[in-house]
Amino acid sequence: MPDVKLPFSRDEYAERLAKVRTAMEKAGIEVLFVSDPSNMAWLTGYDGWSFYVHQGVIVGPTGEPIFWGRAMDAKGAMRTCYMAEENIHGYSDDYVMAADSHAMEDLAETLGEQGWNRLRLGVEMENYYYSARAHSVLTKHHEGEIEDATGLVNWQRGVKSTTELKYMRRASRIVEKMHSAIYELMRPGLRKNELVAEIYRTGLMGGEDEEGSFGGDYPAIVPLLPTGKDASAAHLTWDDAELEPGQATFFEIAGCYRHYHAPLCRTIHLGTPPLDMIRAEEVVLEGIADGIEAARAGNTAGDIARAFYAVLEKHGVKREGRCGYPIGLSYPPDWGERTMSIRPSDTSVLVPDMTFHFMPALWMDDWGLEITETIRITEDGPAECLADVPRKLFIKEDT
Amino acid sequence: MPDVKLPFSRDEYAERLAKVRTAMEKAGIEVLFVSDPSNMAWLTGYDGWSFYVHQGVIVGPTGEPIFWGRAMDAKGAMRTCYMAEENIHGYSDDYVMAADSHAMEDLAETLGEQGWNRLRLGVEMENYYYSARAHSVLTKHHEGEIEDATGLVNWQRGVKSTTELKYMRRASRIVEKMHSAIYELMRPGLRKNELVAEIYRTGLMGGEDEEGSFGGDYPAIVPLLPTGKDASAAHLTWDDAELEPGQATFFEIAGCYRHYHAPLCRTIHLGTPPLDMIRAEEVVLEGIADGIEAARAGNTAGDIARAFYAVLEKHGVKREGRCGYPIGLSYPPDWGERTMSIRPSDTSVLVPDMTFHFMPALWMDDWGLEITETIRITEDGPAECLADVPRKLFIKEDT
Repeated sequence: MPDVKLPFSRDEYAERLAKVRTAMEKAGIEVLFVSDPSNMAWLTGYDGWSFYVHQGVIVGPTGEPIFWGRAMDAKGAMRTCYMAEENIHGYSDDYVMAADSHAMEDLAETLGEQGWNRLRLGVEMENYYYSARAHSVLTKHHEGEIEDATGLVNWQRGVKSTTELKYMRRASRIVEKMHSAIYELMRPGLRKNELVAEIYRTGLMGGEDEEGSFGGDYPAIVPLLPTGKDASAAHLTWDDAELEPGQATFFEIAGCYRHYHAPLCRTIHLGTPPLDMIRAEEVVLEGIADGIEAARAGNTAGDIARAFYAVLEKHGVKREGRCGYPIGLSYPPDWGERTMSIRPSDTSVLVPDMTFHFMPALWMDDWGLEITETIRITEDGPAECLADVPRKLFIKEDT
Repeated sequence: MPDVKLPFSRDEYAERLAKVRTAMEKAGIEVLFVSDPSNMAWLTGYDGWSFYVHQGVIVGPTGEPIFWGRAMDAKGAMRTCYMAEENIHGYSDDYVMAADSHAMEDLAETLGEQGWNRLRLGVEMENYYYSARAHSVLTKHHEGEIEDATGLVNWQRGVKSTTELKYMRRASRIVEKMHSAIYELMRPGLRKNELVAEIYRTGLMGGEDEEGSFGGDYPAIVPLLPTGKDASAAHLTWDDAELEPGQATFFEIAGCYRHYHAPLCRTIHLGTPPLDMIRAEEVVLEGIADGIEAARAGNTAGDIARAFYAVLEKHGVKREGRCGYPIGLSYPPDWGERTMSIRPSDTSVLVPDMTFHFMPALWMDDWGLEITETIRITEDGPAECLADVPRKLFIKEDT
């Protein structure tokens, strides 16, 4: 048993593995190749910035999961995973950026060495980092059938354990500090990159809880903080321009502890906001309150969205699309869990200790307004907001 | 012509497009779908953290490139790309995280609307964010042949323009400041997350050149800073443990300006290093010097690697694999350009204004040593190091 400091108990990893094997059985999958880095970490503890080369965790019919990756990253697996050394497999660097060979040939061989080359293999066809070419090569070399198992592991991650919730509460302490720092610093003339420097610094310095102080980790998405008309777009980052008075900037950020996220967005207007933005704030706040009321065990993800959209409709505000998604452990490029969606058509039933980013942002023609919450479904009653940041459009008058 | 502040002149974008069309013709590709975010940015200016949903740039036989992405990101394209509004296409949010439909259906329709549905289509099968499922759906809906065009655009990016080099020099000023801050702060008892907080802060605050001050951007890889035995692995990030005396930490970081990178690694030992590490330093420094001597226009990428490996062999140090790659514009998860490799088998001819991260790190059984340089191939003579950081194993005696 390797001497590795794991973020979770070995029992918790064993439970996770058992849940995945049950789901595999249900799906008729005999061996599973997991390439989503958050699924890999959730199953084994693996933690490294190596998802830019082919790698994954193999879950066979029996035994420990197998880490499979580049030889230099197998060394990282030895430092971060719970599995025994014989279950950590490194492939040659010759496969990296090679035109005439592909790492998936090595994966097929590795499956063969385990006697799994004719088994029904599940792969994550719609997760990041499992490329079209990887699939094409693996299909040529694996003798058994290959099935799409996208989301199979992700769906097991929906309900959070006690330790996972502890990590998300720590992430929530961090995001509270980040928003305090932002409000403190915001002023006309400040360069946006300077503001981002403090957002990162604050997020990484971490926070405190009853067990002491803890450090921050990198979120799966960088801070998004578009200003003025740029905030009509959802995913712009920053430049080194100075902030100007008379404009709103939204801050889409997350606190992060051991790769567990607490995303939370707020918007700050420098100077007095226009009337339509203040009206929008009122509508969004009412919609969030109604959404949180509907976010109860036994209801569906769609119920949250319907409650929110009912308020918007009542006030004649037009908006479409998703307004939230499950969250927890994640690696770039997305902090969403990629299973349920908070949108009217989603029939997923809410269960206690599911966690979501309830994200009913408004992107209008000339500005954007993001006020969001990280919520936990409780045993009874409305959802709990994990972070405590005043829920409003912040206004900072010219100083 | 939209009123957008572009990082490059419209002429430069026109030249890039022409180069890509020439390469397409050579490869027999009539229409190209580019999903690599760095290729998208290089071709159009597009800049947003939206690569976690399907998106891309379509280069047809004639006309401007077309941005194709989620509707909310089409708004971001309007704020960052040079193309006219009619060449920015947004698809419905219903395609996002939908089990029964796929955004690639919309892409096939979009190609059809242009009259390109029977053309020979190139796709990047081995780039990030073009998933196996995306390829499977597109293959069903596109009537023409589909060919693998991985790297087609990347190969056009190898030789840097004057403006690109200006951005990389700015990134180099930033990485110099980052290493100064690290050396200043390193001490036993410092928590690693606190150190990362300052690395980020310094990188984002930016630097100065003859034109004034400029801000930093997010690098495509987060800081890697494993300590002691953890540094035997290549890609570990950080935790909140305190630094201990008697151990080495390597810092694999990059300065970044407008998504252009200057990666540069150094290693710091707290206290007197062991003799084998000091010997390794000598060998690596000699190998780097010889590699830089060999990094000349007309030589090959393989020549750099051979010069380096000859020194290692002479001193009996074992190492395998790549020791560098081209760099420039990039988005997560990799700052490499994904074309050439600095390894003995690479026959790519070096051309002036190509830029590489020459990365001959040593990952030994119990420690790691990273001393690297960002280099530019010059007209005549050995490569130029873009950043000026003392090239050595840093030692910080206990204070």
